Amino acid sequence: MKRSIERLHNVVRDELNQGNISGAVGVYGELDPKVEAKALEILELRPAQAETQILQRDRHAALLSAIAIAGGTIEQIARTFWEMMRSDVCELREPRAPEQRGSSAMAHKRNPILTERLMGMARLLRGYAHAAMENIATPECRDISQSSVERHIFPDATSLLDYMVRKMTELVEGLVVFSHCMLENLENSQGVWASQRVRNALMDAGIPYSEAYQYVQQLSFEAEKDRMHLKTLLTLRPLNGRYVTDILPSEKIEECFDVNAYIQKGIEHIFSQ
Amino acid sequence: MKRSIERLHNVVRDELNQGNISGAVGVYGELDPKVEAKALEILELRPAQAETQILQRDRHAALLSAIAIAGGTIEQIARTFWEMMRSDVCELREPRAPEQRGSSAMAHKRNPILTERLMGMARLLRGYAHAAMENIATPECRDISQSSVERHIFPDATSLLDYMVRKMTELVEGLVVFSHCMLENLENSQGVWASQRVRNALMDAGIPYSEAYQYVQQLSFEAEKDRMHLKTLLTLRPLNGRYVTDILPSEKIEECFDVNAYIQKGIEHIFSQ
Amino acid sequence: MKRSIERLHNVVRDELNQGNISGAVGVYGELDPKVEAKALEILELRPAQAETQILQRDRHAALLSAIAIAGGTIEQIARTFWEMMRSDVCELREPRAPEQRGSSAMAHKRNPILTERLMGMARLLRGYAHAAMENIATPECRDISQSSVERHIFPDATSLLDYMVRKMTELVEGLVVFSHCMLENLENSQGVWASQRVRNALMDAGIPYSEAYQYVQQLSFEAEKDRMHLKTLLTLRPLNGRYVTDILPSEKIEECFDVNAYIQKGIEHIFSQ
Amino acid sequence: MKRSIERLHNVVRDELNQGNISGAVGVYGELDPKVEAKALEILELRPAQAETQILQRDRHAALLSAIAIAGGTIEQIARTFWEMMRSDVCELREPRAPEQRGSSAMAHKRNPILTERLMGMARLLRGYAHAAMENIATPECRDISQSSVERHIFPDATSLLDYMVRKMTELVEGLVVFSHCMLENLENSQGVWASQRVRNALMDAGIPYSEAYQYVQQLSFEAEKDRMHLKTLLTLRPLNGRYVTDILPSEKIEECFDVNAYIQKGIEHIFSQ
Repeated sequence: MKRSIERLHNVVRDELNQGNISGAVGVYGELDPKVEAKALEILELRPAQAETQILQRDRHAALLSAIAIAGGTIEQIARTFWEMMRSDVCELREPRAPEQRGSSAMAHKRNPILTERLMGMARLLRGYAHAAMENIATPECRDISQSSVERHIFPDATSLLDYMVRKMTELVEGLVVFSHCMLENLENSQGVWASQRVRNALMDAGIPYSEAYQYVQQLSFEAEKDRMHLKTLLTLRPLNGRYVTDILPSEKIEECFDVNAYIQKGIEHIFSQ
Repeated sequence: MKRSIERLHNVVRDELNQGNISGAVGVYGELDPKVEAKALEILELRPAQAETQILQRDRHAALLSAIAIAGGTIEQIARTFWEMMRSDVCELREPRAPEQRGSSAMAHKRNPILTERLMGMARLLRGYAHAAMENIATPECRDISQSSVERHIFPDATSLLDYMVRKMTELVEGLVVFSHCMLENLENSQGVWASQRVRNALMDAGIPYSEAYQYVQQLSFEAEKDRMHLKTLLTLRPLNGRYVTDILPSEKIEECFDVNAYIQKGIEHIFSQ
Repeated sequence: MKRSIERLHNVVRDELNQGNISGAVGVYGELDPKVEAKALEILELRPAQAETQILQRDRHAALLSAIAIAGGTIEQIARTFWEMMRSDVCELREPRAPEQRGSSAMAHKRNPILTERLMGMARLLRGYAHAAMENIATPECRDISQSSVERHIFPDATSLLDYMVRKMTELVEGLVVFSHCMLENLENSQGVWASQRVRNALMDAGIPYSEAYQYVQQLSFEAEKDRMHLKTLLTLRPLNGRYVTDILPSEKIEECFDVNAYIQKGIEHIFSQ
Repeated sequence: MKRSIERLHNVVRDELNQGNISGAVGVYGELDPKVEAKALEILELRPAQAETQILQRDRHAALLSAIAIAGGTIEQIARTFWEMMRSDVCELREPRAPEQRGSSAMAHKRNPILTERLMGMARLLRGYAHAAMENIATPECRDISQSSVERHIFPDATSLLDYMVRKMTELVEGLVVFSHCMLENLENSQGVWASQRVRNALMDAGIPYSEAYQYVQQLSFEAEKDRMHLKTLLTLRPLNGRYVTDILPSEKIEECFDVNAYIQKGIEHIFSQ
């Protein structure tokens, strides 16, 4: 989002801060460049350089692209939330008025209607950006074929992005987070999320990469198939005749399955920036 | 246009004549298929086969594509007219109210504003079709991400095409055709349009292709450069030492430059269909 | 898919079965329509009517759109599978060579790489269809701006769709279905999937819609929150002072939670078509 | 073009100068951020902030958009040249090897094949940018649906733009300019290009705007219709009973029709920047 804001900011500052009042064919035939400079100063714009009669449309395409990309990032956030809002994942839920009904057919459903709306709207913004890109090659820079398009896409794209940003803000602020479900889903994975840590620990203890990889992979598949925890399986299945408990100290094994230790470094690093 | 009408007709008849009332998840859990059939009969629709909870969106993408393609054909007509409306070509002009002003700066201009508007609008229709195509993969066929898009593109695309068809009809009906300019522009080309006919006539008279091609090409370039008529040049520049007037009978040469003879066969053929 | 195949078939049969050999400007100046008819007969094509020098490009746009829509349907199937392939859903898995490695970092992962590839490729097909739609308005139907585009999109789009169809066929044929996980996931939902059936049964027994809806909704939320089965809660929570077991016969309640009964009607209906 | 180069430069400098090596799920579970910083330093990249496992795709969409917009500007230049290359305008011509043949059917034609190729290719770049925008919302930032797209669009878009820039450079360097045709076309316009200057001169001499506009418009239409020069008509048609020669000094009238004076101010202004 920060990049999107910067991109929009840059386009407005660098591309759309210019105006053009150069008269027919853009040659200042009946208009002094000083008049242009004066008029644009009042509008807080700088004179564009070497345009034709109209301001070149690549600037507007740059704006509409930045809008569509911002919409794409909102779509991405919505999409990620959406996956976590699935009934069988249930780690997130949209904010919801207490008296709000569920789906008409299924009283128990809490459909992520806002999240889905935001996912759809990004598609519209892409269509507008595409039209703006087609506008650049306006023949002879005088015709008004770009104008009929811009009357639609300028208000539609800007107001749609504004709506999306407001709604996404509401969504994030009111988001219901089920941290116990997150933990539960993690538990249900039988510890296979730690397979890489176990493999690395084995390698640190001298086991070659390929052997460690294959061992951990087989155990992970068994864990998922038979619903046994990977930590338990480590104690039951020998690796080349040796029990893992003989290869690794038990504190090391515990550490491998410590969720907090796993993510702590990353969280500290990301929030320190 | 005939093809576009047929395409739209086919989509409506074959794709959009179906409905779907199959209840949650589309399994008719609480709804008898007979109820669906009855309800759809009232709406003059057939039950769709093997849908999910909602009607699959490939049908709507097919409609929006057909609309965008119809818009593309209107754009093509507009584009062809536009070239013939250029100030320096001046073979066509948009209908125009007698009291209508020209461009604000240039009183003498009659800008093809309607033609240009139609060229621009086709870009919007393409953007809508693209969004409709993204809608097909609606996840799990239950979410409503496609709905927020369709609320925009269904009314926008259909009403825009309706507007374009009406305006194009007005444009064609009121089109001002300057046939004398067409003839004049043809004259200005110094007869080089007939170069292929001359080449073929020479080949019929026994001159090999390559020689005939090169001779005619050189003369055509000379005609354009020196503003001399190709027919005149044929009498002045010998081909391998022989004058063309000795190779071809004069009626044959006249025939080569007969505009009506050139296009008659084609016109008869096209209008006989 | 059936509709997509029909659409492609129709385009090839109705739109691309025509040819055009009408010479410069399309007026048959130096070419008899009979020659065209003869030549096209050899190519098993019909002469197109009233074209210009080249075959009009709306036909090709129709083909590329049909290809992109077919791609969208493949994307939709892939997207639906993808959701069922998530680690925490685990109802489907891609076919996989026994010795195939998982992700490089995470030995236990079986990423749906083929499914994801198919989802991405549909985006390319949409881009090609868009370009084909821009090609329609080729100015004056003589220029070759459409040609540079078609050299890319014709082979790319057709071979990509072919690849996608082959890969999707492989995927469907080799799909690993975990029906026990499907049942398990259903169990984990604490029976709330049956909320509509319970509500309808209550309404059949005389409870007004609003009351039945609200009762069922509250119980469903409680079931999910406290991980108690909806069927159990029905026996514990009275509705307006009466126990549901007094309102509905116990066979009726059992029937509400009978998964097979729920989907049987729909399955029979769909497969009977 | 300058803006396009800047845009591409900015994207590469600000958006694509970052890398991401944060391991599974992007949490640095098994990877120290210092290792990332060190590895990226070798690649001359900065660590991206707060990414997931992969670098977020909005950056790549920004690059592909900048490429498509650059393509749009090349298309615009090509389109403007194309209009000036029309047979009946003939102010520009593509560079051409002396022995190069014309169109196969029409020996005299010098089709602007390169210009048209450049116009078409911009359409492809727009399709690639659209696909890149769809890539942003990659679900969960782990799947590889964006990868199958990027394998196509990254090499295609970059090499296509490179080709277009090279070819456009060749085109501009070898462009054949027919300045005598430009003057001739201007002459053929019967001086109506000066209508605004005449109107302004009349207004400076005290004639109200509306009267001056209407007078000049009528005379311009007459000039075009009857192929008489506007300057001549000014001497023949009185304005409210007074001859223009009585309203304006003859030097003033001459000045109105002085082409060089008309454009000099603009040219000086533009090249002074």
